[in-house]
Amino acid sequence: MSNTNWSAGAAWMRGRVMPIAEASLPVTDWGLTHSDITYDVVHAWDGRFFRLDDYLSRFERSLEKCQLSIDQSRDDIRRILHRIVGQSGLQRAYVSFVASRGQPAIPGSRDPRDCVNHFYAWCVPFIWVFSEQVMQRGAHLFVPDDLHRISPDSVDPTAKNYHWGDFTRGLIAAKDAGYDNTVLIDNNGHVTEGPGFNLFIIKDNQVITPGSGVLEGITRKIAMELCAHQGLSVLQADVSLAQLLAADEVFATTTGGGIVPVSRINQHSFSNDGAGEATLALKDLYWQWHADDAMSEAVDYAPA
Amino acid sequence: MSNTNWSAGAAWMRGRVMPIAEASLPVTDWGLTHSDITYDVVHAWDGRFFRLDDYLSRFERSLEKCQLSIDQSRDDIRRILHRIVGQSGLQRAYVSFVASRGQPAIPGSRDPRDCVNHFYAWCVPFIWVFSEQVMQRGAHLFVPDDLHRISPDSVDPTAKNYHWGDFTRGLIAAKDAGYDNTVLIDNNGHVTEGPGFNLFIIKDNQVITPGSGVLEGITRKIAMELCAHQGLSVLQADVSLAQLLAADEVFATTTGGGIVPVSRINQHSFSNDGAGEATLALKDLYWQWHADDAMSEAVDYAPA
Repeated sequence: MSNTNWSAGAAWMRGRVMPIAEASLPVTDWGLTHSDITYDVVHAWDGRFFRLDDYLSRFERSLEKCQLSIDQSRDDIRRILHRIVGQSGLQRAYVSFVASRGQPAIPGSRDPRDCVNHFYAWCVPFIWVFSEQVMQRGAHLFVPDDLHRISPDSVDPTAKNYHWGDFTRGLIAAKDAGYDNTVLIDNNGHVTEGPGFNLFIIKDNQVITPGSGVLEGITRKIAMELCAHQGLSVLQADVSLAQLLAADEVFATTTGGGIVPVSRINQHSFSNDGAGEATLALKDLYWQWHADDAMSEAVDYAPA
Repeated sequence: MSNTNWSAGAAWMRGRVMPIAEASLPVTDWGLTHSDITYDVVHAWDGRFFRLDDYLSRFERSLEKCQLSIDQSRDDIRRILHRIVGQSGLQRAYVSFVASRGQPAIPGSRDPRDCVNHFYAWCVPFIWVFSEQVMQRGAHLFVPDDLHRISPDSVDPTAKNYHWGDFTRGLIAAKDAGYDNTVLIDNNGHVTEGPGFNLFIIKDNQVITPGSGVLEGITRKIAMELCAHQGLSVLQADVSLAQLLAADEVFATTTGGGIVPVSRINQHSFSNDGAGEATLALKDLYWQWHADDAMSEAVDYAPA
């Protein structure tokens, strides 16, 4: 194993730790063929998992919502995450843990209840959802008018899932039009979220974030705590596209980068086409919190 | 290779034919993590591919709709399908061919356009979407009222995809309530389709099938040809749940079983709680057509 290049990442599957390049799912697994799978992502930053228990709790709720059952306890999962990041040696990592429907124990069955669900986990070097350059100048987002977020009546967005067909369409449209990323509206014209991030607006010192039909992001939750710390009141409510465009400041929240200033949406620009002042203060505080022992735990780089 | 058990199936990936158990996708492939993938399924029956060109044409349309680009030509794909079924020795097979977004050539990119798309294919013994016993007595279907098919405004159902979260919810609800399978309505209350099958009703000798918001199934297309052959006129139109329940006969169409009689939906039963007469005639004709050389081609079991 000494010659293996672990710096690209590591994975745990079926009891074994392996380099990320070796981690793969059978092409017949329903996690792939039916996207019948749930997952979560925590990050390690400078050798510490940030807010790990929040992510583990959400993963447990997702399992229940998807009626998936795995052999690993919360403590097992925590140990596995330490093992893979420890083995990789990565100080800053994107750490994903996944539960898949698997395959039927009865060959030929089409009943999800006959499947043997299974857990796996993997880590790679930290992934920025927005590049550092984009985070400096503020993200440019595109809201297509002919594309809607998959409805909660069809797929529950609060159970973190791989159903990204709507996001992919929006993302390709956004990139083709010169934007950095996309945000989708729902059937009623309300703002939802983007691929991997939630959205916040600030208007007259009132912070508002869409209250339903979105993933309950952990960084979204942390952003609400940051706002409270700054004395900003946060409302969870429907946000129309008109309201979004009329905001004083807009920011996105994601595990893959924290608090992300948004400087343009469609033809509109915000906060003098740059990062807003309140947003920057929240962003600084977000990174300061990473040094708080109460919010993070050291990765075990020398596992037994 | 002589000791390998090929009877469970075979796959082609990255230029190599392998036993199905060895075919797997990296856990970081966007085909999995974003369900950014399209596919098709043809069946081989008694050593012959049935209507292969119809499936190949639809796959090409799906690739275009998903903006996926692969190295393999239509002829390459045809050769690969012959190779894997030939290698497996399976006379009756479920044969899947897939194009995945892959992974970014630029590490850390979140742009779908940076990904290296790739093709693979696999076959396993024929899969019945409904068991033979269920096909005899007629399928019992459950239409939940609180769950909607993913809208075409979000994900295009005509580009065959793995976004089955809505179907999985419906299927678990159906199985828990003692039904065989589920059919979903859309936001407007119109009947759409079930997991892996289209739906037809017959009322006063008029055949109707949902005209939009559904996969344009190849067996659906063949069913329309079968109806024409029988002198039955077919209408593609919106079908309400009330219209569905008031039908004289109902049947489903799927590559995984052909023409499937439906005898119950929710609390209602059709055609004396059994298979309808017109349905059975269409079913018989469907299997007769498998012996028609113009509609099928012999699998090459001794590839060069």
